[in-house]
Amino acid sequence: MAFSEFRPLDEKSLIEYIKATHVLFNKVGNNYDKLKIKEVGDGNLNFVYIVVGSAGSFVIKQALPYIRCIGESWPMTKERAYFEALALKVHGQLCPEHVPEVYHFDRAMSLIGMRYLEPPHIILRKGLIAGIKYPYLAEHISTYMSKTLFHTSLLYRTTTEHKRDVAEFCGNVELCRLTEQVIFSDPYKVSQYNHWTSPYLDRDAEAVREDNVLKLEIAELKSKFCERAQALIHGDLHTGSVMVTSDSTQVIDPEFAFYGPMGFDVGAFIGNLFLAYFAQDGHADSFDDRKSYKEWLLRMTEDTWNLFHKKFTAFWDEHKDGPGEAYLPAIYNNPELQQLVQKKFMKDLFHDTLGFGAAKMIRRIVGVAHVEDFESIKDNSKRAECERKALDFAKLLLKERRRFQSINEVVSAIPA
Amino acid sequence: MAFSEFRPLDEKSLIEYIKATHVLFNKVGNNYDKLKIKEVGDGNLNFVYIVVGSAGSFVIKQALPYIRCIGESWPMTKERAYFEALALKVHGQLCPEHVPEVYHFDRAMSLIGMRYLEPPHIILRKGLIAGIKYPYLAEHISTYMSKTLFHTSLLYRTTTEHKRDVAEFCGNVELCRLTEQVIFSDPYKVSQYNHWTSPYLDRDAEAVREDNVLKLEIAELKSKFCERAQALIHGDLHTGSVMVTSDSTQVIDPEFAFYGPMGFDVGAFIGNLFLAYFAQDGHADSFDDRKSYKEWLLRMTEDTWNLFHKKFTAFWDEHKDGPGEAYLPAIYNNPELQQLVQKKFMKDLFHDTLGFGAAKMIRRIVGVAHVEDFESIKDNSKRAECERKALDFAKLLLKERRRFQSINEVVSAIPA
Repeated sequence: MAFSEFRPLDEKSLIEYIKATHVLFNKVGNNYDKLKIKEVGDGNLNFVYIVVGSAGSFVIKQALPYIRCIGESWPMTKERAYFEALALKVHGQLCPEHVPEVYHFDRAMSLIGMRYLEPPHIILRKGLIAGIKYPYLAEHISTYMSKTLFHTSLLYRTTTEHKRDVAEFCGNVELCRLTEQVIFSDPYKVSQYNHWTSPYLDRDAEAVREDNVLKLEIAELKSKFCERAQALIHGDLHTGSVMVTSDSTQVIDPEFAFYGPMGFDVGAFIGNLFLAYFAQDGHADSFDDRKSYKEWLLRMTEDTWNLFHKKFTAFWDEHKDGPGEAYLPAIYNNPELQQLVQKKFMKDLFHDTLGFGAAKMIRRIVGVAHVEDFESIKDNSKRAECERKALDFAKLLLKERRRFQSINEVVSAIPA
Repeated sequence: MAFSEFRPLDEKSLIEYIKATHVLFNKVGNNYDKLKIKEVGDGNLNFVYIVVGSAGSFVIKQALPYIRCIGESWPMTKERAYFEALALKVHGQLCPEHVPEVYHFDRAMSLIGMRYLEPPHIILRKGLIAGIKYPYLAEHISTYMSKTLFHTSLLYRTTTEHKRDVAEFCGNVELCRLTEQVIFSDPYKVSQYNHWTSPYLDRDAEAVREDNVLKLEIAELKSKFCERAQALIHGDLHTGSVMVTSDSTQVIDPEFAFYGPMGFDVGAFIGNLFLAYFAQDGHADSFDDRKSYKEWLLRMTEDTWNLFHKKFTAFWDEHKDGPGEAYLPAIYNNPELQQLVQKKFMKDLFHDTLGFGAAKMIRRIVGVAHVEDFESIKDNSKRAECERKALDFAKLLLKERRRFQSINEVVSAIPA
């Protein structure tokens, strides 16, 4: 460990840090003249350096004690790096094929050294904006979600393991508070950080703030988010937290990880696919009307849930005689009952997924942090039109999620 | 602190302990010849000594590293004393009128020194068996439940306070595991500890173990118990955890305390009132047919919920502009919406209450630990008859709780 006290690194001090850190030193080799360092953090919170040497490469991610995109006026504990590293390790053990390896963690420095996801890896959201189809996306992300969520829940684990880890991740309270504020609170009240495509959506934003039924539903979801320790969730699983190539899918940035409701992760991903879908009309041009891509996105959404459902229940079947506390084999030991409890569980999880997904959509349109899918539509009027369709659909989902029995029904409910 | 390492006290070493412990020493005065010590632990888990001296009195409760009523073959962490002392302090600060004061806690010795609830205080369960009416019971217990549950929930507290305390009480995992086993698991499977009034209830016990719908419902409640950190609950609020006189009601023994669903406490109390009710026919004799007492018990049950509802929502109204994270004033700021969210919250809590109450009833009839209400009925056939009625009603409640809108409807559903 190079420094015993926190200090933000720059490109120069980073080299000193690498020299002093065995595992990093070994990765890149000792030819420091050839070392290439590039700051690439385009996220909202942290500094990210790509380090490429003669022998290899890695990424350095350092958390600063405030939110980068807003500045020192919005403090945010740098301890989030600890929980991010921990979640990367836990999820990485469960699903190494879709989680980048952690090489090094320095708690004092809030610094993670991890695999560099080399080109042609790009952020999934950018790929979706560009209209690129990823044939393995639903397959991969459903594997990641089913593996991480199932194996950190009481379907697989004992109460003793569960409560120990729940307690540990209660420490990530600052990041939970941020989510509570920006997803479950700010969009439903007047807040200095909220913004939207004005003046087009002024009435729409106001309508969200005045919709009693919407507020009733968001309260139920917020309470689940705050109180229900169902599994170790990623906590921020939108399409900006996934890096892809045509055949690789890597989930990054789990700094919001804690024991929360599974539907928050599944919903985040599906909600962001819907956002990508509703943004497509804004990306259409005379060369590509995006019709085929919109269909692909909807099929991806359906596949994501359906494959997740299939894999999750397959893990359940596989481990139904294991030590998981939730459904003891001595009680749930007949096939008919096993089917009954799975059906109920998956139905509830589906409705959670739709609710949280809708909440994630709403906040991206009238809350503080927007998505590039819409932001990259230059024509304000066109952007507002896309956003309004997304917002209206999200409101429908949030209010009426319990009437949907399948993801296909949900997709069919999108106005033509 | 008298000893730095754990050792079980007997009456002799207890005197040495008191002499060496300032706060206890001061309570009873220095006339040790007059000191009266009596072991009275009739519970399942601990040793309890009453200590009365010339200047005052107290109770010493010591947890042993196993379950007293079963013996060293069922180990149980003595750290439960720490969580009991902590819960007594937290709940005592919120509701000093119904929680005995803690004078002394010794973590190494797993020992609590607390107020002696002097005669005529008796265990409520014994009073209900004897047919004694307690005019303030519903008033007092609803005060205790509403004060402790409201003020330890996110209706009143911030996320930061909440997660800190949730993490702390995750340490009480052994006691949570015990509850999971004896309430949510054992009654629904073959277990060496289960017993019932045999042979009368053999078929009834078997029917519980073969009832798929019942198992589906108990799974939902178990998951809430394991995952939902809603408030600091007592965790074992049956009528054996309450001491009463005609005008005093004191809640003791919160060693099962943790952050769990509110309905588990309210349901425990109401479920045990129902058990007391169904046992009355077994206590009837030619002098007292217990008809009037049965009516009083049902009225108590109704009053307990209705007063709890009234006081809980009054606290909510009082603190609706406070720092509680669940319903921020800037969002839930109109009277119509406030009413809407309260109604939904209280309906959900009511159904939780009925479900958990029913689960507590069932486990007392076919599980490991029974209640004196039934055990004191000497005639096996008559006891079985009372137990079967209670069991059938509990099964109905567990399965159909969502169709009840009010406690009066529930009481009306009891077969005449």
